[in-house]
Amino acid sequence: MRGALTMITGNLLANVPHQLGDEQIVELLSAPNVRIERIVSLGHATPPDVWYDQDRAEWVLLLAGSAGLIFEGEAEPLLLEPGSYVHIAAHVRHRVAWTDRSVPTVWLAIHYR
Amino acid sequence: MRGALTMITGNLLANVPHQLGDEQIVELLSAPNVRIERIVSLGHATPPDVWYDQDRAEWVLLLAGSAGLIFEGEAEPLLLEPGSYVHIAAHVRHRVAWTDRSVPTVWLAIHYR
Repeated sequence: MRGALTMITGNLLANVPHQLGDEQIVELLSAPNVRIERIVSLGHATPPDVWYDQDRAEWVLLLAGSAGLIFEGEAEPLLLEPGSYVHIAAHVRHRVAWTDRSVPTVWLAIHYR
Repeated sequence: MRGALTMITGNLLANVPHQLGDEQIVELLSAPNVRIERIVSLGHATPPDVWYDQDRAEWVLLLAGSAGLIFEGEAEPLLLEPGSYVHIAAHVRHRVAWTDRSVPTVWLAIHYR
C-alpha cells in the first residue's frame, strides 16, 4: 500500500524557479524532531549585519548553484558548491554572504533537535 | 571560532569510490534523534526476498547515479534519479531492486525518530 503517510516522493531539482522575488522555501518533511526544507535562492543574501541565530541545529546541503556562508568571527566565507554540506550547531551565528546570480541555488536544509 | 563541534563541512560528491566490494556507508552526523549517512552503491541491490524493516523513519535523497526502490506490495520499483527523494515511514518494508552498474550511485540517508 503506497499511502501519503508512508511514502512521499519527488525531485529536488524539478520545478526550480528561474525567476524569484523572495527566496522560495518548500517544506518536505515536518516531524517533531526534524524539519526538512528545499530552499531556492537566486542572488539572495542575508541583509548586512543580520545574523541567523537558531535554536535548532541545522545540516545544510547545496545541490545546485553556489553560495558563500559566513560564520561570525570568520574573515572569509565558506564556499559551497554542488555536493557541499555544512553542519551548523544551534546558536552558531552565520549569514549567507552571497548566492549565485546567474543560476538558481538549491539547498536542502535539515533542522533538528 | 570554527570548531569541530560547531561546524563540520565536506562534499558528498568528493572521494566517491569507483570500485567497491560492499556498499560504502559514511556517517556524517549522529545525534540522539537524527543520523545522516552517505551511501555509495555500484550495482548493489538488496538480496532477493530480503526486506528492510526499520524502526526509524528514513528520508532518502539520490545525488548521483540511479536506483530502483521497491515497496512491499508494489509491482514496479520506484525509479530514483539525481534529485529524487523518498520518505520511508518506519516499518514500511522495502528493498533496493537495483543500482546503476556503470557509475556510482550516491545516496543521502536521514534516519530519524
